[in-house]
Amino acid sequence: MKTTILNRKGVKKVLGRRLWLGKADFLTLPEVTSGELVRLTSKEGHFLAIAYFNPKSRIMARILSFQDEEISREFFVKRFKKNFGDRQKLYPGETCFRLVHGEGDLLPGLTVDLFESVAVVQLATAGMERLKSTIYDALKEALPLKALVFKNDLPVRKEEGLPLYVEKEGIDGPFWAKIDGLYFLIDPISGQKTGFFLDQRENRRRFSLYVKDKLVFDLFCYSGAFSLYAARSGAQKVLAVDRSSQALALAEENARKNNLAGKVTFIQDEVENFLQYAPKAQAIVLDPPALIKKERAYQAGRKLYEVLNNKALARLEDQGIFLSCSCSQFLKLHDLLSLIERAALKSALYPQLLEIGLQAKDHPIYLSMPETWYLKAVFLKILAFEGEDEKQRSS
Amino acid sequence: MKTTILNRKGVKKVLGRRLWLGKADFLTLPEVTSGELVRLTSKEGHFLAIAYFNPKSRIMARILSFQDEEISREFFVKRFKKNFGDRQKLYPGETCFRLVHGEGDLLPGLTVDLFESVAVVQLATAGMERLKSTIYDALKEALPLKALVFKNDLPVRKEEGLPLYVEKEGIDGPFWAKIDGLYFLIDPISGQKTGFFLDQRENRRRFSLYVKDKLVFDLFCYSGAFSLYAARSGAQKVLAVDRSSQALALAEENARKNNLAGKVTFIQDEVENFLQYAPKAQAIVLDPPALIKKERAYQAGRKLYEVLNNKALARLEDQGIFLSCSCSQFLKLHDLLSLIERAALKSALYPQLLEIGLQAKDHPIYLSMPETWYLKAVFLKILAFEGEDEKQRSS
Repeated sequence: MKTTILNRKGVKKVLGRRLWLGKADFLTLPEVTSGELVRLTSKEGHFLAIAYFNPKSRIMARILSFQDEEISREFFVKRFKKNFGDRQKLYPGETCFRLVHGEGDLLPGLTVDLFESVAVVQLATAGMERLKSTIYDALKEALPLKALVFKNDLPVRKEEGLPLYVEKEGIDGPFWAKIDGLYFLIDPISGQKTGFFLDQRENRRRFSLYVKDKLVFDLFCYSGAFSLYAARSGAQKVLAVDRSSQALALAEENARKNNLAGKVTFIQDEVENFLQYAPKAQAIVLDPPALIKKERAYQAGRKLYEVLNNKALARLEDQGIFLSCSCSQFLKLHDLLSLIERAALKSALYPQLLEIGLQAKDHPIYLSMPETWYLKAVFLKILAFEGEDEKQRSS
Repeated sequence: MKTTILNRKGVKKVLGRRLWLGKADFLTLPEVTSGELVRLTSKEGHFLAIAYFNPKSRIMARILSFQDEEISREFFVKRFKKNFGDRQKLYPGETCFRLVHGEGDLLPGLTVDLFESVAVVQLATAGMERLKSTIYDALKEALPLKALVFKNDLPVRKEEGLPLYVEKEGIDGPFWAKIDGLYFLIDPISGQKTGFFLDQRENRRRFSLYVKDKLVFDLFCYSGAFSLYAARSGAQKVLAVDRSSQALALAEENARKNNLAGKVTFIQDEVENFLQYAPKAQAIVLDPPALIKKERAYQAGRKLYEVLNNKALARLEDQGIFLSCSCSQFLKLHDLLSLIERAALKSALYPQLLEIGLQAKDHPIYLSMPETWYLKAVFLKILAFEGEDEKQRSS
């Protein structure tokens, strides 16, 4: 393994547990091929970390370990087993969870979702792609798997110079898995991401405490998880909206399997369009896909969030519950709070902050790597302005 | 009731549901005595709100209603009854809660905590002081009270030109009340604030889920509520620290009454001093009093928070749980998160963000009045750096 030397700035980053290093952090750059492992040291030769390198990427090095150890099958087996134990403690009795959450688990570029005995793996970087067979062997050794899918179709792979592909073993299509007592059809081959969004688990549990006897909208419902949690918890009715017929087919099958089809109506439409003819709801969850995918798209994306929030808020009855989510890491929590406030004001609504939710705990967030915090879920109660028509008042 | 006219800026504030107005928001200033009620209108004479006025205060007017109504006993009775119903729904089976949370309940300057049949009232402003007998009558009419205390010893009253005093009726000293299944001795006459901090209810419930079999520190324990929740939830041992012997006497009595005295050791000391000789804990709650009381004291107060967080973090074992609170409205959530990160870094610790807690829901937060959000509770898991001594590494 080659060694490369960090400058003062780079050393400071590593000691501060930043996992990403750029060109400006190095005194010398190693002659390596894309994805190769390197040892990082200080000028004095002190070992700092092991990272994989990609000379073509803006993020030149991503750290895998702060110990001078071999990045072997044993290395991964140890990590996978530890994570498996931690997750079982987090979610007693549950068999589906995120086993590896990239940077949040000190394994940059690697995602592993476990659905009972099926592992769905995503390799986002050249460094992880090079370690693919080691990871494959380690997963098989660490866990009693019946099937494994490499869902390597992430667009971000192109920036790393990697091809997009899906590889599967022991599995041919969707399968049923039980999550928090509900059955979901997981489609790791042609579904979104790994086939199911485990990151909203805690927020689904919490939202369902607010919905009894209410008319609920599940906006951008995908496979209908928020809808089913709500329907099971006594929502009077759920209208679940998504533009994708494929997502809705999945969602409908999920509703039937859980005997909740009578409670949920699925609507194939653009959410913004639906909100123009929708009745008034008593609770709404708005969970759009990431609308800011790059930092430079921040302003435009923020505007999209505000418009969506405004339109959803306008369909809420007085005292209605509003769960507004953003899974874009570029939109910070205080940005989301302030755009909701502005969106509400435009409709003369008055939002009370009830709770703040994060991504599920099997998607760890580290303060030193703020990029690991992507999902924000703001729970609000929305009060309509009392009294006369607001428009008359403005001077 | 006199009428006064807002300028464009003032109208905008009222439509945006800001409850506070300053000199710069008025076209005309009324000739009123301190605390008098006024009607606010636009230049065109449209009614906007009813507020009480204090010509001597920076916050000249505070809004009580957006409807053109009489601020009578009936006005308060209606509000108190509505809040009582709302709180009972929030905390089923509970008999102690904050009935009125000032601006958060659109009753600026008024706090009412209800402990079973005892109401503890705080009037913070000249406007509310003028309404004292109306409020008294309304409370007696709305609720079956056995006792009522005006705990009007808030230092902020001096700025409003008000005397500090405590008045009591139907009560002579501390009494027992049951909160979340635990007994607490409430001292509304000589205790801090209203005699008990109800604002940490949800955070105490959540924290207690993390403490089983652990050595826990309760720092700035006051009457020991975090300690007792933790002890009941299976903490191996709690060390509860406060500088005040009066607080600790209360806390010890609470522990005995709940048969938890064997689980909690009370230590009278400055928290910073205790942390110099303390053993290592597996879970710590750090809940200091507001260390930033004025905006201009922000920098110094922020530093105090950072020092305290750093010292507490240094006493945590690897994988320890840390609940860091701030009840200062001037310290925003993202400030608290970033100072915790810096405090952790100084001890080569790595904080994982688990949950974000707010003040209890009977202390409503409105986005349009950010001043209503004062309590932040950050739940973290703290990882020690692995590997060799950090000091050797720095270049």
